[in-house]
Amino acid sequence: MPSLPKTLQSAMADTVEQVETAIEVLLPTVDLVEARLFEAMRYACLGGGKRLRPFLVMESARMFGVNPACALRAAAAVEFVHCYSLVHDDLPAMDNADLRRGRKTVHLEFDEATAILAGDGLLTAAFEILSDPETHEDPQVRCKLVAALARAAGPRGMVGGQMLDLIAEKQTFDIGAITRLQRMKTGDMIAFSSGAGAILGKAGPAQQHALQAYAHDLGLAFQIADDLLDVEGSEAEVGKSVGRDVAAGKATFVSILGVERAKDQARRLADQAAAHLDIFGDRAEMLKEVARYVVERRS
Amino acid sequence: MPSLPKTLQSAMADTVEQVETAIEVLLPTVDLVEARLFEAMRYACLGGGKRLRPFLVMESARMFGVNPACALRAAAAVEFVHCYSLVHDDLPAMDNADLRRGRKTVHLEFDEATAILAGDGLLTAAFEILSDPETHEDPQVRCKLVAALARAAGPRGMVGGQMLDLIAEKQTFDIGAITRLQRMKTGDMIAFSSGAGAILGKAGPAQQHALQAYAHDLGLAFQIADDLLDVEGSEAEVGKSVGRDVAAGKATFVSILGVERAKDQARRLADQAAAHLDIFGDRAEMLKEVARYVVERRS
Repeated sequence: MPSLPKTLQSAMADTVEQVETAIEVLLPTVDLVEARLFEAMRYACLGGGKRLRPFLVMESARMFGVNPACALRAAAAVEFVHCYSLVHDDLPAMDNADLRRGRKTVHLEFDEATAILAGDGLLTAAFEILSDPETHEDPQVRCKLVAALARAAGPRGMVGGQMLDLIAEKQTFDIGAITRLQRMKTGDMIAFSSGAGAILGKAGPAQQHALQAYAHDLGLAFQIADDLLDVEGSEAEVGKSVGRDVAAGKATFVSILGVERAKDQARRLADQAAAHLDIFGDRAEMLKEVARYVVERRS
Repeated sequence: MPSLPKTLQSAMADTVEQVETAIEVLLPTVDLVEARLFEAMRYACLGGGKRLRPFLVMESARMFGVNPACALRAAAAVEFVHCYSLVHDDLPAMDNADLRRGRKTVHLEFDEATAILAGDGLLTAAFEILSDPETHEDPQVRCKLVAALARAAGPRGMVGGQMLDLIAEKQTFDIGAITRLQRMKTGDMIAFSSGAGAILGKAGPAQQHALQAYAHDLGLAFQIADDLLDVEGSEAEVGKSVGRDVAAGKATFVSILGVERAKDQARRLADQAAAHLDIFGDRAEMLKEVARYVVERRS
């Protein structure tokens, strides 16, 4: 990633390593008859991924002086939910995907039943982690995290977005409907991740609003970039099948706006996302870099 | 159910009605593009079921003077998780079941992708309900409920038990392994349900232990009765396919103990479960009746 500034690159690499370790600890290898379930959960979460959502949690937490050990637990919980959604999304009845993060998808590496249960287990474990006193001493904070994650991941958030995504294969969505779909499918979890640090650090409403506005634009920029990668990226670079939206005849930001206008739009959203963080001064530099990164990434 | 005492029968009927209404309110019909998701979630939860777990929540809550409106939210959350587990368990890759509560299973009434997402949505919604201040004013209590439900439903509880259930089709389990499987697969959620009232009512440790011991025996009695129904019940009575365990060559309490010893064991466990509640005096009469009911039920 030559276009990335050194600092962001190294900070993201640090998070990748920390999250990997945290997941190892939270999902240990077990010597139990049902070990296969834990192996599938680990396979789904370990060894790959940009860890964008955990990075947003860690960085927003750092801005408010949150204990990094606490933030890391929230970051792992977010990644559990993200990975569960990928496992279920990849199932034969859903996207029927073979490749994820450059490896076989969970239902191919294990089997379909195990993949369903591994996803269920990861989602449930995320709430167990957040509700544990080790994540924050104040139960009010833990409850807020649980409630916010459940909203972002539930039928009015990510799961609803996945349902819309299925419907979009059979029905023509206009730009407004696609924006809503993407806000629910990926935006709400990105917003939760960016806001988790503010919850953990008991930030005031102005700060929470600024982060929400940032996450809103970041999420859209991220999704447009994702649509562009589906059209322009190669499977080797992206680590998953590409060209799927076009093949499915599914409307995306790119199919509606065209490649050039989509690129402009993504860049404009990234700039706008960064601008929302001006109230934080230098502390927000890394989150601003992330906004630039998501539209320039090649995977 | 002629063998049921009037009081239990009417109390359970009341809960069925209350839970039905609570679910209607918590899962409204929506006028959204993704309405199908909400319809599938409602289909999975409404119109059927003994509501045993919600009844355990309501009764244990009543013993500690908990506001019934709060208890009903926890009861609905438990039922969401129970119904999600049935939806995923019935999927073609899992049990491949056609019939549930006398109706087509969710993936047949809708489709497989919708069934997966409806299950995911129900599980997530359960945690949203529990973490909401309307469930209890004290965030510590809400956090305890979330943590306890996540443990009971997660990879070390129900999901782990479902994994064991898959493994049991290929591997011979002895009575110890089957007991562990059943404790995880159904016992832990029954224990959560019985204990939820104690959490909501901030009961002391002796009371919590008594309820745990009750739930432990109740859960096993329930499962043995279930195995007996699979052998002796008719599809029309039970409302789901029967004879599946025998057909799959799966070891169960009944295949190991035989019908008569299994019946004795179930009755003994039910008596023992009831005896654990003696410390509560008359207040526990209904929960004691439930223990007798689960071994006498025909569905």
